[in-house]
Amino acid sequence: MQQTKILLDENEIPTHWYNVVADMPNPPAPPLGPDGQPVGPDALAAIFPAALIEQEVSAERWIPIPEEVRQAYTLWRPSPLFRAHRLEQALGTPARIYYKYEGVSPAGSHKPNTAVAQAWYNRQAGIHRLTTETGAGQWGSSLALAGQMFGLDVRVYMVRVSYEQKPFRRSMMHTWGAEVLPSPSDQTEAGRKILAEHPDSPGSLGIAISEAVEEAASRDDTNYSLGSVLNHVLLHQTVIGQEAKKQFEKIGDYPDVVYAPCGGGSNFGGVAFPFFADKAAGREVRLVAVEPSSCPTLTKGRYTYDYGDAIGMTPLLLMYTLGHDFMPPGIHAGGLRYHGDSALVSQLYHEGLIEARAVPQLATFEAGVQFARAEGIIPAPESNHAIRAVIDDALACKDTGEPWVLFFNLSGHGHFDMAAYDKYFAGELEDYEYPEAAIEEALAHLPKVAAPA
Amino acid sequence: MQQTKILLDENEIPTHWYNVVADMPNPPAPPLGPDGQPVGPDALAAIFPAALIEQEVSAERWIPIPEEVRQAYTLWRPSPLFRAHRLEQALGTPARIYYKYEGVSPAGSHKPNTAVAQAWYNRQAGIHRLTTETGAGQWGSSLALAGQMFGLDVRVYMVRVSYEQKPFRRSMMHTWGAEVLPSPSDQTEAGRKILAEHPDSPGSLGIAISEAVEEAASRDDTNYSLGSVLNHVLLHQTVIGQEAKKQFEKIGDYPDVVYAPCGGGSNFGGVAFPFFADKAAGREVRLVAVEPSSCPTLTKGRYTYDYGDAIGMTPLLLMYTLGHDFMPPGIHAGGLRYHGDSALVSQLYHEGLIEARAVPQLATFEAGVQFARAEGIIPAPESNHAIRAVIDDALACKDTGEPWVLFFNLSGHGHFDMAAYDKYFAGELEDYEYPEAAIEEALAHLPKVAAPA
Repeated sequence: MQQTKILLDENEIPTHWYNVVADMPNPPAPPLGPDGQPVGPDALAAIFPAALIEQEVSAERWIPIPEEVRQAYTLWRPSPLFRAHRLEQALGTPARIYYKYEGVSPAGSHKPNTAVAQAWYNRQAGIHRLTTETGAGQWGSSLALAGQMFGLDVRVYMVRVSYEQKPFRRSMMHTWGAEVLPSPSDQTEAGRKILAEHPDSPGSLGIAISEAVEEAASRDDTNYSLGSVLNHVLLHQTVIGQEAKKQFEKIGDYPDVVYAPCGGGSNFGGVAFPFFADKAAGREVRLVAVEPSSCPTLTKGRYTYDYGDAIGMTPLLLMYTLGHDFMPPGIHAGGLRYHGDSALVSQLYHEGLIEARAVPQLATFEAGVQFARAEGIIPAPESNHAIRAVIDDALACKDTGEPWVLFFNLSGHGHFDMAAYDKYFAGELEDYEYPEAAIEEALAHLPKVAAPA
Repeated sequence: MQQTKILLDENEIPTHWYNVVADMPNPPAPPLGPDGQPVGPDALAAIFPAALIEQEVSAERWIPIPEEVRQAYTLWRPSPLFRAHRLEQALGTPARIYYKYEGVSPAGSHKPNTAVAQAWYNRQAGIHRLTTETGAGQWGSSLALAGQMFGLDVRVYMVRVSYEQKPFRRSMMHTWGAEVLPSPSDQTEAGRKILAEHPDSPGSLGIAISEAVEEAASRDDTNYSLGSVLNHVLLHQTVIGQEAKKQFEKIGDYPDVVYAPCGGGSNFGGVAFPFFADKAAGREVRLVAVEPSSCPTLTKGRYTYDYGDAIGMTPLLLMYTLGHDFMPPGIHAGGLRYHGDSALVSQLYHEGLIEARAVPQLATFEAGVQFARAEGIIPAPESNHAIRAVIDDALACKDTGEPWVLFFNLSGHGHFDMAAYDKYFAGELEDYEYPEAAIEEALAHLPKVAAPA
């Protein structure tokens, strides 16, 4: 038999998270306050526990994973690495295709990797309640699960369009005991402000972040938890890439190219950063972030300081951005509808150390269906972005005869996205135009701070 | 760290299926034709390939698994065995609780274990098209997947109430390329007959079987595939119990009680039969089939010859039955809404070698939510039946102080059943009365054949 899955034992779950900052050629630019001055850790203490703030600013290469968090990881980790024999055969490519499957977590995506860590650190700090935002619901359900595991109450502000389109992610959060509100809501100043201007607002991740942050900042018993973008979030996700490296080692193979969908960056950072460590040490490996062409942050955005949320509640981050009030089209990859990107991912891209590629919606669903028919697993729409890029490159290998090793993170399953697949089959999905005018307008609203050196 | 998952390598996927007939004290009673005479293999050749008919009547203890089927199994097998540390802790029980998790298959349940085998044998026999029925959609989606893997077209007759309540299982079948029709349909004599009498019929598994069998019997290029009940289906599922035994061996533990939900019997047979082999050899182990109290086939049905379908197209099987035209209440565990049961499971129960227990719907959802909050995974409503029984017994252990080892098959996840969880949380689910009058009426329609010796 051909080996399909490369597995690890639970005792091979990484003992440390890998901090890419230690291997970056330049230190990350600090977040700035509204006054244009660097924000110190103290300013974040209203919404984050000290341990996570330390991780946010750390330059240490290895950060130990608490035993309780590793124990929580055993519910689904290590995740399997698959060799996509059947997809290779269907494509007739000489490429070897591998994917790490994060859909094995109870929430069905990679998001619980950081959710359980954040819940645990908050609980250690005496916090009993968390607020957060969610787009497609992958992050909200992950934090609901993690809150349940460590005894914290969780309130989720869910982007309204997803709240309505994806009722079953909401049910999942209820099953794990969380409270879910559609955002914009009337529970916060931020939400009320948006609703006053746009009563029918479909919401966005940026707006939902504003609401969750506002509530956490105003209550002593409540902290805020973010599912992507921040350094400590990407840090927690590096268990994915670390496990993958061990798995490749077991079979004596190694990727030429690593792909992941990229919205806020935690999926991409989680799988790619541990390979970046090899690249920094001289090994040849390409790292490709794949984003929607309708929300093309890295490929069409500006590298500058901008808010992480829609309203301007958060510190300014130096990142690729489409403007904090850019409203992305309602594509079905809700997790990729974000105006900005991780500062770490942005800096690596700005310095030419990683690549980015934008792909249109229809082509991603075509790739997802082709994948499902070959490999069985029905992927999340976010994951379909990476699959599109991999299939394109595997077909290019067919032309050139190059036996490249292509590896991607299959970040989640699509069980809660079947309505989008229905629309695809019914011919009702569209490829949005590149929203140039909306991006230009949003970029005109960038905060006025000194450009980075 | 405490070990959570006990894993096996792909080369530990069983090489043979285990045939319980070899260890039963008495040979199974033969299926009968409408004339009351035993049906020979030839009568089945219109809808099944010869290899599966051989398996259906075989008394060999071990049947080799074709390499291509084992290769297909590698997409998700071996499935993990979990120790439910967190559930044990939540219950405060001295019992050790384990579960085998079959939700890791692409279709999300144990059903692909037989679907890929059946698709492969049909393809080997030159068949290019399969029909089948499905209730909740777990079986239909599994056969859609298997058909796609081995290049067969698949048409699924889906019980109408599920077709309407569970559109996303339908989408899943479309994604894997199958055609799906609501049953009763106007495509068959059987469907037209039911619709003429009951234009608003919600359908049932029995009706859908009639339709699928009728179409397969009337077309040379088309065979029929059944997701449960028959001996060869239960045979294929024994990979579950065989793997579980190896996994228990690795950790030096062994169950006192094995539980599985029981509708047509493939889930129960798959996990319990390999343990029955040990029991037949003198080892103490209890085997408990758990069924809905609103469709209490084993616990309230009659042990007699009856049709496998609603109309009377199939041979007569000696089994526990509520009457082939019994219409089970619309409970959310669609996979358990079947009037009959596997002949093998029925015989073992009749001879006092296994146990059966009936549990009401609300209590199963309560158990499922408790399980999800402790262990993460959100179970299918069918699986919640086993969980209810396990939790009841684990709580009994708390009273007695007995450290029993309780093991169940978590046959699938509930990602396509969240609407049922929503109803549970909204207080809209009901416990149906034991449908005594309906069962009495259906039992009055039993075919007139000689009672078994």
